[in-house]
Amino acid sequence: MSSEARPVPSASRPALRAAAEVADQTDPIAFARQRFTLPAGVIYLDGNSLGAMPAAVPAAMADALARQWGADLITSWNGNGWWQLPASVGAQIGALLGAGAGQVLCGDSTSVQLFQALTAAARARPGRDVLITDGSSFPTDQYIADSVGRLLGLEVRRIEPDQLGAALDERTAAVSFSLVDYRTGELLDGEAITAAVHRAGAVMVWDLCHAAGALPVALDAWQVDLAVGCGYKYFNGGPGAPAFIYVAEGFRAGLDLPLTGWHGHQSPFALEQRYQPAATIERARIGTPPVLSMLALQAALTAFDGVSIAALRRKSLALTEQIIAYADERLARYDVRVRTPRAPERRGSQVALQLPHALEVSQALIARGVIGDFRAPDLLRLGVAPLYLRHVDVLEAMQALEDVLASGAHLAPEFAQRPAVT
Amino acid sequence: MSSEARPVPSASRPALRAAAEVADQTDPIAFARQRFTLPAGVIYLDGNSLGAMPAAVPAAMADALARQWGADLITSWNGNGWWQLPASVGAQIGALLGAGAGQVLCGDSTSVQLFQALTAAARARPGRDVLITDGSSFPTDQYIADSVGRLLGLEVRRIEPDQLGAALDERTAAVSFSLVDYRTGELLDGEAITAAVHRAGAVMVWDLCHAAGALPVALDAWQVDLAVGCGYKYFNGGPGAPAFIYVAEGFRAGLDLPLTGWHGHQSPFALEQRYQPAATIERARIGTPPVLSMLALQAALTAFDGVSIAALRRKSLALTEQIIAYADERLARYDVRVRTPRAPERRGSQVALQLPHALEVSQALIARGVIGDFRAPDLLRLGVAPLYLRHVDVLEAMQALEDVLASGAHLAPEFAQRPAVT
Repeated sequence: MSSEARPVPSASRPALRAAAEVADQTDPIAFARQRFTLPAGVIYLDGNSLGAMPAAVPAAMADALARQWGADLITSWNGNGWWQLPASVGAQIGALLGAGAGQVLCGDSTSVQLFQALTAAARARPGRDVLITDGSSFPTDQYIADSVGRLLGLEVRRIEPDQLGAALDERTAAVSFSLVDYRTGELLDGEAITAAVHRAGAVMVWDLCHAAGALPVALDAWQVDLAVGCGYKYFNGGPGAPAFIYVAEGFRAGLDLPLTGWHGHQSPFALEQRYQPAATIERARIGTPPVLSMLALQAALTAFDGVSIAALRRKSLALTEQIIAYADERLARYDVRVRTPRAPERRGSQVALQLPHALEVSQALIARGVIGDFRAPDLLRLGVAPLYLRHVDVLEAMQALEDVLASGAHLAPEFAQRPAVT
Repeated sequence: MSSEARPVPSASRPALRAAAEVADQTDPIAFARQRFTLPAGVIYLDGNSLGAMPAAVPAAMADALARQWGADLITSWNGNGWWQLPASVGAQIGALLGAGAGQVLCGDSTSVQLFQALTAAARARPGRDVLITDGSSFPTDQYIADSVGRLLGLEVRRIEPDQLGAALDERTAAVSFSLVDYRTGELLDGEAITAAVHRAGAVMVWDLCHAAGALPVALDAWQVDLAVGCGYKYFNGGPGAPAFIYVAEGFRAGLDLPLTGWHGHQSPFALEQRYQPAATIERARIGTPPVLSMLALQAALTAFDGVSIAALRRKSLALTEQIIAYADERLARYDVRVRTPRAPERRGSQVALQLPHALEVSQALIARGVIGDFRAPDLLRLGVAPLYLRHVDVLEAMQALEDVLASGAHLAPEFAQRPAVT
């Protein structure tokens, strides 16, 4: 190990600790952490993959099982509001995304909702034959765009968001981008891009998976047409929690969705032969939703009660700033590079660090109770969920990272094997 | 009330009771009832809408929450087998449907799975341009057929199953029928219809919603191509439990599914730009599944352990026979008519009774703790879930029905209003 690779003097750590503790003591949303069940000895920086469990969930689920399903049985569709869940949980979600009432519907997976949204978007622009997606988007966004393109006879173009201006033209039916890049954490300008797409006469579809519940999204104000996102990241709805779709009120009348399940019918219990979509957001329903998973999400969303998105955003930025500063000041010597934009307005709620042996480092950290994740080929992705993460947690995680790099602990053979699911 | 409308002498009831008790005492699968949590004072004849709760579910869910999600967090995808759930729960389901290993995948809703299956079925027969469904099928089956037909440029024909022979020709791409009619309980001949469809060179898609878990289905032996079904009826997986899709091994190689979510990719964690479906049944995966709901279904299916489908079927037929006999002998005087086929080989696990004021009668029964359901315009639908229903339950339910009809209790004003969800 070269002399450069020595850790900085440990004397500075108490000062960092004191600063982190002050930041936590003055954190206006510190109370929200008490709403989560967090395992001892773990610093969880993967809330952007699977949010931690809100403490309200087990009681809600116990009630859902013993009383609602077990005792009330089929009558719960009326008596316990099961039928209303997609719209009512959708309303909880919409309130966190700047969406007025009646525009968000909860259900199915993000992949399914993307299929719905992209098909409806393209159908809303007959005569136009190009669908634009981003070649850096999460794979499902690209796969679904290709499938919709094939079904509807559209050309699918992969365009980087900063090249969008030159790509938009009268052939463009719809554009689908992720508001936050799942690897780098780059945050796009939702309002400006939506406006540019509209100027070209096309439909804008936002994937909010890595934004919803972590930063301000203003769907109505940005005049977005359609958006989708998931329930299990910053919304903390549990593994595979139902996703959601936003349909702007002005876009709803002609909305032509391909998954015409009976729950979306205007009179589902008339059991008619021909599909007639509901006039309301209920038309975005498909089949019977996974009620237990949706009740977990419903309970989970109460962890946002009394937390303003502005305060959430301030804390998120302070936490990502803390990671970036630590990496810049103390980890550059280990060839750690910050890949997330430094400008706050372009940064989501995660930091991607590029470094040698990123897979091994991520696993060595997990062995120390610091859970982030690895994205091939060389990114360590650290997500900050501002509802439950503290500044002292981030500090300890970064110190653990520094210790791993300084000691070379990640080069031990047990960290060289890739787990089945990463 | 005419003299004809008087109840038969109550003296005969003890004899009926004794016979029912004997039948229960000699029931070889009576032990399975102990595996369910059933509310006191309720006779539940709606297991064909929502199965009762297996007693194993609450403990499984508590573990899923506290240990798997709460403590193990993201590592549960590997460490607790979340990633494997769609295939492993699919295998549990397949074993109950005569499907060899690796052909059933659990996930999403029946509507979504129907969309997958019908699209893939039609694509497997290029050049053929007709999709056949049944105008008496559950609405979602028809709505999805219409949507797939529109996307692929196919004509959708509504054909009654007994008219299928004349309708099949060289234009037929695929046929989609429900094995059991959701209203009448009529059971089709799965093997013969599949063979006829194959003779015409078309693909057979079965909807097993009202059959799976209640009677023998032999998907492999019948040489079915594709099938779908739900997890919340006779499988007792909980409200909105995930559905399933069966893809015959011989049909899988070219299977061209439209919902190309990343979980179905051959290398999902390579995060590639282009979709390449998995070679295995995993290609039927879409997005991240609702893990909590799927774990409930996984636990629920253990209620079938050690129960042969043949024994289940014998009990189911005995229970429906009991309903039919009671209706014939004692309720014809109230204009109650049995609409379910009397031939056992054409009967599912429910009985539909046609009668005046069926809605009001169904609600008067619910007020007495007998839960069946109403299907417009004039059917009272009584489902028998043979895992947990006893002969004494059926007897008490039929006696309650007789008492309601004899007394006219259903004509009280409170039963004239239709509930929001029926």
